[in-house]
Amino acid sequence: MSENFNLKNYIKFFAQRVDDWIRNYLTYENEQTIGLIESMRYSIFAGGKRLRPVLIYSSYGIFESYFDKVTPFAAAVEMLHTYSLIHDDLPAMDDDDLRRGKPTNHKMFGEATAILAGDALLTLAFEIMLDKDINKDIPTETILEAAFKLAKSAGYKGMVGGQYADIINENKEIDKNTLDFIHKHKTAALISYCCELGAILGFADEKDKQNLAEFGEKIGLAFQIVDDILDITSTTEELGKNAGSDLKNKKATYPEIYGLEKSKSIAEDLINSAINILKPYGKAATPLIEIANYILKRNN
Amino acid sequence: MSENFNLKNYIKFFAQRVDDWIRNYLTYENEQTIGLIESMRYSIFAGGKRLRPVLIYSSYGIFESYFDKVTPFAAAVEMLHTYSLIHDDLPAMDDDDLRRGKPTNHKMFGEATAILAGDALLTLAFEIMLDKDINKDIPTETILEAAFKLAKSAGYKGMVGGQYADIINENKEIDKNTLDFIHKHKTAALISYCCELGAILGFADEKDKQNLAEFGEKIGLAFQIVDDILDITSTTEELGKNAGSDLKNKKATYPEIYGLEKSKSIAEDLINSAINILKPYGKAATPLIEIANYILKRNN
Repeated sequence: MSENFNLKNYIKFFAQRVDDWIRNYLTYENEQTIGLIESMRYSIFAGGKRLRPVLIYSSYGIFESYFDKVTPFAAAVEMLHTYSLIHDDLPAMDDDDLRRGKPTNHKMFGEATAILAGDALLTLAFEIMLDKDINKDIPTETILEAAFKLAKSAGYKGMVGGQYADIINENKEIDKNTLDFIHKHKTAALISYCCELGAILGFADEKDKQNLAEFGEKIGLAFQIVDDILDITSTTEELGKNAGSDLKNKKATYPEIYGLEKSKSIAEDLINSAINILKPYGKAATPLIEIANYILKRNN
Repeated sequence: MSENFNLKNYIKFFAQRVDDWIRNYLTYENEQTIGLIESMRYSIFAGGKRLRPVLIYSSYGIFESYFDKVTPFAAAVEMLHTYSLIHDDLPAMDDDDLRRGKPTNHKMFGEATAILAGDALLTLAFEIMLDKDINKDIPTETILEAAFKLAKSAGYKGMVGGQYADIINENKEIDKNTLDFIHKHKTAALISYCCELGAILGFADEKDKQNLAEFGEKIGLAFQIVDDILDITSTTEELGKNAGSDLKNKKATYPEIYGLEKSKSIAEDLINSAINILKPYGKAATPLIEIANYILKRNN
């Protein structure tokens, strides 16, 4: 795999699988709720990179290769991720008008619909994972573990907790501990879960699941640090969302606390240390390693 | 049971069990998220009647009597219900200041925290249900069925869909079909689920689960019709929330479409028809029957 590995094609291949699955699944029509479903589809298909699904597939690929059974889980996580973006962008939260180069959900559909579309996508993530008809090849114990850990990493001890700390600390001087809490919970918790989920679905043992979760936490933290850096060094056009929005919202960031160069080197150290965890898995870990490197070098 | 049955004491007993369980469970403290957890606790303990938990226990009681194993599920549903109230009250939605005689969550903690507290409670409902350590006496298959059906009835094809139709039709002339869609989805879907959940946890067969779900849908619809009536006939003090808020938000209601007397008789018919479904269960169904009658006669 390794020498001819092309990350761009690899991501495209799996992103397409998830997109096709969601498009095929989300066909429910009801004249009473057509606007709600439209707004859910709008944000799901607004051009996301599908990083989280690709991480799930890549982690799973270390242990098994029957990728089709992973797809509904990858789709579910992408829905949950999309909910978090819709709610983050709301006027009461980050108040962002632009996401992936397009108007945010509430700008298109209004605040009430955006709140409900987020609620619906969060709930739908669980509905899909827990659907025995969809996931008939997966043991119930495995489904339970996957969905339980999703709830844990996305909830008040995980992603939502991080988002809360992020919002509540706007306009405040915060210390390194608080900044780390925010980044680890708001961003790294779900990315860590994605890497662990691949191992769960691949019937990996506890030690392997732990390794993948740890790898995911490190690249997740690096991902957020790079996000902080890009918010300063990039243009709105490059980012597809408003550049400088951290400054605008007076958010603490890595560059602000550590400076730009030190932030870059922290991100680099995290990526190297993450890749190191994957050594035991040899070439099977190539996709994850390439994604880790891409996270460091990405420019949007 | 029947002759000496005291509904008030019965509700108090089970409401207390759920409250104690939640109080004992929700002890997580973290200095970064203390305000979030406070706001979650605030709305959970703001004086809800615990109708949904009591319905779950009562339905379960037809089939089994090991009530302790039901409690975490009842707590989870109450958390989900609480999330729906917090989000419904938001300025972008019904914009209500008062709930159960107290300031609504966003009035106390601000909009951002209220949105996140809702998100956290919704996610936590699934976390609790799917926790194998908590629910160790319940077969995995049963947990999965319970959580899957919760997601279905709470999501875009259920409660969230109803809430969307409710909001989107404000200020509009709507027909009976639309009003029925709203009430069935916004309110009856979760109440129906509660009654079915008791049967699921009691290992009832498919026919019994269906009966309980149908009973729940009918009393749920009656519950919402009575709500519509009370919004007109009661004072804010009696309701603990702003009376006349349907008029204020220009919402279609049963009394508006059918008139007050006809609305009352529709609710009565629904309750009678619901109670009729429970005939095969004899005295074991007394609590559910009493609750059904209470729904009709309640004044707040």
